[in-house]
Amino acid sequence: MTERTFGLAQPRYLESASMNGRERMLAALKGKTVDRPPVWMMRQAGRTLPEYRAIRAGRSFLEVMHDPAIASEVTLQPVRRFGLDAAIIFCDILIVPAAMGLNLEFIKGTGPVLGPVLRDAADVAALKTPVAERDYAYLLEALARTKEELAGQTALLGFAGAPLTLASYMIEGGSTRTFTELKSFLFGQPEAAAELFDKLADAVGDLLLAQLAAGADAVQLFDTWAGELSAEDYERFAMPYNRRIIARVRQAGGTIMLFLRNGAHLMDAAIESGASGLALDWRMDVDTIIQRLAEHQDGSAPNVLQGNLDPAALFAPPEQIRERVRRLHATVDGRIAHIMNLGHGLHPNTPLTGIEAFVEAVKELG
Amino acid sequence: MTERTFGLAQPRYLESASMNGRERMLAALKGKTVDRPPVWMMRQAGRTLPEYRAIRAGRSFLEVMHDPAIASEVTLQPVRRFGLDAAIIFCDILIVPAAMGLNLEFIKGTGPVLGPVLRDAADVAALKTPVAERDYAYLLEALARTKEELAGQTALLGFAGAPLTLASYMIEGGSTRTFTELKSFLFGQPEAAAELFDKLADAVGDLLLAQLAAGADAVQLFDTWAGELSAEDYERFAMPYNRRIIARVRQAGGTIMLFLRNGAHLMDAAIESGASGLALDWRMDVDTIIQRLAEHQDGSAPNVLQGNLDPAALFAPPEQIRERVRRLHATVDGRIAHIMNLGHGLHPNTPLTGIEAFVEAVKELG
Repeated sequence: MTERTFGLAQPRYLESASMNGRERMLAALKGKTVDRPPVWMMRQAGRTLPEYRAIRAGRSFLEVMHDPAIASEVTLQPVRRFGLDAAIIFCDILIVPAAMGLNLEFIKGTGPVLGPVLRDAADVAALKTPVAERDYAYLLEALARTKEELAGQTALLGFAGAPLTLASYMIEGGSTRTFTELKSFLFGQPEAAAELFDKLADAVGDLLLAQLAAGADAVQLFDTWAGELSAEDYERFAMPYNRRIIARVRQAGGTIMLFLRNGAHLMDAAIESGASGLALDWRMDVDTIIQRLAEHQDGSAPNVLQGNLDPAALFAPPEQIRERVRRLHATVDGRIAHIMNLGHGLHPNTPLTGIEAFVEAVKELG
Repeated sequence: MTERTFGLAQPRYLESASMNGRERMLAALKGKTVDRPPVWMMRQAGRTLPEYRAIRAGRSFLEVMHDPAIASEVTLQPVRRFGLDAAIIFCDILIVPAAMGLNLEFIKGTGPVLGPVLRDAADVAALKTPVAERDYAYLLEALARTKEELAGQTALLGFAGAPLTLASYMIEGGSTRTFTELKSFLFGQPEAAAELFDKLADAVGDLLLAQLAAGADAVQLFDTWAGELSAEDYERFAMPYNRRIIARVRQAGGTIMLFLRNGAHLMDAAIESGASGLALDWRMDVDTIIQRLAEHQDGSAPNVLQGNLDPAALFAPPEQIRERVRRLHATVDGRIAHIMNLGHGLHPNTPLTGIEAFVEAVKELG
């Protein structure tokens, strides 16, 4: 029986398997099928947990993120509570635009607000070039602290936003339902857009490499708004920059997962991305993508899938959650390495009983 | 030269083809390839047009919708301005929940608000059964008036929301980003959900048949939130009710288009829906669905496609819009009847020059 120990508290769930969480996660990331799928959840650290809300009571989101000790504590909370196989560092994708000179605020009820928004090539030219070790020092220290706390028992993940998603916030100034400012910029000023995406690809690559150097076992590239573009426009405006980032991380020996949210129509792009693995949205058909990956036998295709339960399924009665986990596991059927996860981030008001049922169901697969 | 005449004004574009807009649209809806694709735009009547905003200056959205003369005028505005081949009646999908007893308001900046929200089987049981001729009398009169004004020169379309989308508003109480209330209801109370969808399918079917009887040449079933469910959940919770509605309309001799927004992962469901035609979201790959439809040679598959330009493409420079229209037309390549349209509704702030470029580009295909 492997007992995980953290500086802060005892884990609620203890593993009886011979493999610890980090070993299980790293094996899966190398394409190996292990005793059971490793499990973690996108956006596992955050508002869903009462212990996170307690920490946030006196602090802003940015204060939590910028304090390495607190960010590390928040990163560990879900691992401790649920006994997950991976921790993902508590941070935000918008640190890159902020390091490029934009002002970043998180406004309750509204979400992130970035400004001044980009309107033309001159605005793009005026962006600063981030220096990872300086601009993200708090994050790199949080990673190092968390790595030490995890003591090799649990994998540690870093992440960054993909250029399209970052550009969306930089051009829209925040969240949007229509993406008309972003698309007006892409379609109307393609040269300025290319210059912006160039800069973002460099900055994101720097950030991911710095996270790996600081102790992350693997990184994930999140393209939250991938689903807003048609496949043709995605290939034209966004995917080449993802591929560049991925190639750079892999050439440096790093492991990188790609998440194209709402990207059921982008399956070809995902398969040919060069990523180590693919995090799947719940609309991506798991059986189809496994079949399609099997056709790519040259070793260049992703060799692990992650996901893809609808995060809202955790609002269902526990027995249904277990049934969904079992069904997903049966669909994968050992044909490819699989990391159990959701198809998008945890909803903030997810019942803890739903999360527990999900994690327990995965552990029962072992 | 066919000159269209309206009671209210002269059309801005005159057709030199031998076929008028209605003839062109009806031929396409029967699966015939005609001189050029007919063209109209989802959400063509509304805030994009200055003449609509002038009418709205002193009136609420609901006042416009409930006054047959004004609703008809607003329906005709885009046809008159752009010379479109089809008019779609000015109305809203939420008239069905309103007729079932929920209070409906449109709040500026927020969108529709419906209440009281449904929470359980008792709430579903308490819903009223709408009587189309009584509850939608204003709409049916608006259709009859519009039909007369169009004088057989332009096709007239009716529409309704699909059960899933209507249920979403009835359970969430309005717009949502997460759909967790809806999904908690579906996953947690499947029997109550089935009862609700049963009632909605009946009410939607009644509404569509009433619109056809009042003069609509065809109807469209809009599932705005289809993309929120995985393919498996969509088949379990939503698609059977769409099929029931479609079968009822077709058995009555009506023509019905199905629009599954953001439904790239629902291509199989769309193909096997029984619909006369499919309105395609911009993420649905046109070439793939044409190939897939060609495999269904038993006559049961949809025989016309509609769409699917990204509505945000109308923010691009005019020459790019023309290029996108030409490319889409080349992709279809006469393999199936095609109605040129957007992949979702017009964005309210779309530049009129973009709309003009789109419509002109379609007309140049003739």
